Amino acid sequence: MEEKFISRQNLNFTLFEVFQVDKLSQHEYFKEFNKDTLDMVLKTSYILAERMMKPYLREMDKNTPEYRDGEVYVHPIVREYMEKCGEIGLIAAPFPNTAGGQQLPRAILAACNYMFAAANYSLSVYPGLTSGAANLILNFASKELQDYYLPKMFSGQWQGTMALTEPEAGSSLSDIKTKAIRTDEGYFKIKGNKIFISAGTHSGVTNVVHLMLARIEGAPSGVKGISLFVVPKYRGDGKGGLISNDVTCSGIEHKLGYRGSPITQLYMGENDDCRGWLVGEENMGLSYMFRMMNEERINVGIGAIGIASAAYYESLKYATERKQGRPLSSKDPNSPQCEIIEHADIKRMLLFQKAIVEGSLSLAVQVSFYLDMLSICKEEEKEKYELLAEFLTPIVKTYPSEKGILSTSAGLQILGGYGYCEDFNLELFYRDARIHPIHEGTTGIQGQDILGRKVTMKNGKAFNYFISEVQKTIAEAEKEETLSKYAMELKEYLALFKSTTSELLKIAASGKIEDFLSDATLYLEMAGNIAIGWQWLLQGLIAYKKSTAIENKFLKNFYNAKVTTMKYFFRYELPLIKSLSEIILNDQRITVNIDKELFED
Amino acid sequence: MEEKFISRQNLNFTLFEVFQVDKLSQHEYFKEFNKDTLDMVLKTSYILAERMMKPYLREMDKNTPEYRDGEVYVHPIVREYMEKCGEIGLIAAPFPNTAGGQQLPRAILAACNYMFAAANYSLSVYPGLTSGAANLILNFASKELQDYYLPKMFSGQWQGTMALTEPEAGSSLSDIKTKAIRTDEGYFKIKGNKIFISAGTHSGVTNVVHLMLARIEGAPSGVKGISLFVVPKYRGDGKGGLISNDVTCSGIEHKLGYRGSPITQLYMGENDDCRGWLVGEENMGLSYMFRMMNEERINVGIGAIGIASAAYYESLKYATERKQGRPLSSKDPNSPQCEIIEHADIKRMLLFQKAIVEGSLSLAVQVSFYLDMLSICKEEEKEKYELLAEFLTPIVKTYPSEKGILSTSAGLQILGGYGYCEDFNLELFYRDARIHPIHEGTTGIQGQDILGRKVTMKNGKAFNYFISEVQKTIAEAEKEETLSKYAMELKEYLALFKSTTSELLKIAASGKIEDFLSDATLYLEMAGNIAIGWQWLLQGLIAYKKSTAIENKFLKNFYNAKVTTMKYFFRYELPLIKSLSEIILNDQRITVNIDKELFED
Repeated sequence: MEEKFISRQNLNFTLFEVFQVDKLSQHEYFKEFNKDTLDMVLKTSYILAERMMKPYLREMDKNTPEYRDGEVYVHPIVREYMEKCGEIGLIAAPFPNTAGGQQLPRAILAACNYMFAAANYSLSVYPGLTSGAANLILNFASKELQDYYLPKMFSGQWQGTMALTEPEAGSSLSDIKTKAIRTDEGYFKIKGNKIFISAGTHSGVTNVVHLMLARIEGAPSGVKGISLFVVPKYRGDGKGGLISNDVTCSGIEHKLGYRGSPITQLYMGENDDCRGWLVGEENMGLSYMFRMMNEERINVGIGAIGIASAAYYESLKYATERKQGRPLSSKDPNSPQCEIIEHADIKRMLLFQKAIVEGSLSLAVQVSFYLDMLSICKEEEKEKYELLAEFLTPIVKTYPSEKGILSTSAGLQILGGYGYCEDFNLELFYRDARIHPIHEGTTGIQGQDILGRKVTMKNGKAFNYFISEVQKTIAEAEKEETLSKYAMELKEYLALFKSTTSELLKIAASGKIEDFLSDATLYLEMAGNIAIGWQWLLQGLIAYKKSTAIENKFLKNFYNAKVTTMKYFFRYELPLIKSLSEIILNDQRITVNIDKELFED
Repeated sequence: MEEKFISRQNLNFTLFEVFQVDKLSQHEYFKEFNKDTLDMVLKTSYILAERMMKPYLREMDKNTPEYRDGEVYVHPIVREYMEKCGEIGLIAAPFPNTAGGQQLPRAILAACNYMFAAANYSLSVYPGLTSGAANLILNFASKELQDYYLPKMFSGQWQGTMALTEPEAGSSLSDIKTKAIRTDEGYFKIKGNKIFISAGTHSGVTNVVHLMLARIEGAPSGVKGISLFVVPKYRGDGKGGLISNDVTCSGIEHKLGYRGSPITQLYMGENDDCRGWLVGEENMGLSYMFRMMNEERINVGIGAIGIASAAYYESLKYATERKQGRPLSSKDPNSPQCEIIEHADIKRMLLFQKAIVEGSLSLAVQVSFYLDMLSICKEEEKEKYELLAEFLTPIVKTYPSEKGILSTSAGLQILGGYGYCEDFNLELFYRDARIHPIHEGTTGIQGQDILGRKVTMKNGKAFNYFISEVQKTIAEAEKEETLSKYAMELKEYLALFKSTTSELLKIAASGKIEDFLSDATLYLEMAGNIAIGWQWLLQGLIAYKKSTAIENKFLKNFYNAKVTTMKYFFRYELPLIKSLSEIILNDQRITVNIDKELFED
């Protein structure tokens, strides 16, 4: 009994018809991945998701990780899954051949990660984190550290983590207090504690490798004094064995959702015997970490899309099976009840979900595709793709995270009372989805990032690249008579986005930084709406062309559904941009000016 | 250690400064309730909420009701609480003295219910349901049934329920199949099953009295053939004792939240020995039930406000204590971190919560106040108050339910990672809040109700009464120079609401009923925004007048906060009306016209 959690048809459409990812194989770097090999990767991943992940979704939510005496006992499938991911090369997949990787296009990896998250988000996190941590070691650590850690991480035997957060340093990373004390032995002694560390220790692996931020004694205060270290749970004893590295897990969090993955609290150096090895240069830790962080942020967005996708297909199935009520035009109580998918309000909620899921997926592949271009483009194009990826990262992290909650909630609503009960997975998706606006930088932080950094960086170059990418799609769509109306509309919304941005920049220029950034979260929402509108125009354009040229009924329906969902997005979602602009540009700055005392009662 | 879950200052402001509920005592019907007695009722309720309800919030969520051999074992506090509510007369409070009630103004009862829901929503449901069921018996059942059931229900010994839903009849009540078979003994034999029945049986009471919809054999099909019955769990044995009435509980639901209250599945007449007593006339069941349902819908709204309120105060407390980051104007990492309430984005989320909670509470009191007017107004005014209450019911049910989820989510977001963990109650509130758009008629059903029934009823009379109530407040505010700008704005939004309504009615007049109602849910959202904008202008007006005349710093802050929150609502929420109008009036009717086949993949 197959439970649908993604549409392979849609995935193929996005990857191969919209972005033509298979054409990457024309380039030396990706030459091993033609259409057939890519199909094989996708199929393998799908089977993994369907058979090894999805069946454990509810079970892992119910039987949550248990903390006992410093160890965290997770579901046995975690070990099996990590080993499998190691075996098929998934953890190392995006890395260069020279490093033991496969040079898999990131666009394809995004698709795989989407499937994994849709099948079982908690389970998908373990290898994902390991891959991210390995990436840091690969890019910045010494050959020695690489040789020691990477093989075990790539094989899924050792877990990787990102160890940033501390009790007093969550969103404010500049306040990290964990200490690194210099020794003469080539390592540092680490002392401190970390909280909210995903998979910080667990029974599914034999070792854990923390990529940890700490402050070397005497380093400058703030972000300029943070260094990056490899801090393993067990360190080599020099004789090929492992001994404890004085990293203690003192407990785990009990969470709303995302329950299959333990979030741990860690103490380092309680016995003064925790060793950390510096990665790269001193005091450069945060910039290294952000390399990984940016990828993790894209992954968070993809995770959110996955959950929203699983929610969509489960509610769609229910809507096509559940009979309740009658069409408004035939209320005869003696007539049989109709499937609820016949009701306009249900179709509205389904279209909303479809628009969020497929629009966001398209954006995630778009960003990943830019990263792929970095591996093959000419030197002079590098900046462009880097800046496009930079600009889109807070959007692709946040839009699916925030809207995915709403679309998952719409899915739950379609099931009515059943949606609120554990017989269906909607309530689980609803709980799982709520993590995404929080981890790897809250929505508020993403807002500050896009407006405070990305819009202004390099004199607005990143912003301008983004605008011109959207304009390219608009120009293409204008040529197609049926779609030119929508192209014109997006052009107008884009103009509004630009003028809103200009107005904000005037505020910044006047030195009122608090005012400038006060509604950055809403600005990000506006940017997200533009970006997804762009992706829908792109998808609609390609689908429209295909639909006119095809006879096959299933495919014709598929393409027509794409065009209709594009129209839905233009009619139901894009208009919100106008209100958002008005809200953002209001000159009262109430949220800046209200005195905190006014909240007293 | 007092955990704040409501503001008594705000409650007093709403009840006594905005609505002057104490003036009701000038009327014979409410003569026993002057300001002092009302204060006493409120104080007693607050103490009950604080001492007997709030302490069990987390415990009741953790130790959920257990189903064993036909009985549902609930937390021991349920029995204690029901008895206490009986003892202090709360269950009978709104009923006439002649029926054993206290004739407590509904506006005050709304305030009490708000406090109870804010303290512990699950626990608040038991007496609330009993009161609702008793109301039906009181209004429509025979003297004999009244005398037998009401005393035990009022004393909290017997639980009351609303037993409507069946597996094939959720939103579509016309499809109810439970059978009532006529006998010559003055009762009917009941056969059938019900699902999703709140508190359908539990260990906190000695009996359960179901107010149950069933179809008398031979009755017309559809809603016209539904009758209302009293179906007790145990019936009188004629000798003053109780015997089983063949109502079996076959299980309970495991739910996302709202876990302290069991949702049961019931079988009636499995041994052909379930008796039901007709309430009122045959085939009139649905209209009776809707009398209770309307009150329950208002209560659902109040429940939603309560949860959102508790979430607000918990996140406010966190925001004033948690230190993280620095003001944008002083980023020196050596300076101490500031409380997060200093950040504009946090203040925006707090203002959002405050605006939703206090605006919705005001509307709930407004509607309840209209119901109170029904008890004292001249005969010729009755229709007006009835229609105002009718028109506002779907709004007061839905606006807090839908926006309460978003505001609770904003509260959770303020706590970041901690909000996602069980150490704080935000995650619990987030789960509890999600029930409200579902039970007692989904948001979709409320949308159909307001646009399909309420707007058109009596030739638009209800709609017009609502408009003129809003206009009255606008006219008052126009006189106050500082507020006239906001009055003008609301006037414009109201005009847009009216013109949008007219456009929709043209569609209805053209016979396109599916088109007319397709975006009823969004129309309801628009109506809700107008209604809350109205309440904010009303509150702002009164607070502004007070603030200019007062010296006391605490009170001045309180009134200034009111005015600022009004401004927030006008700047951040009302503008959404424009987008909503554009969306609703789009002429594509995509959600009606999309073929369900297009959702195939």
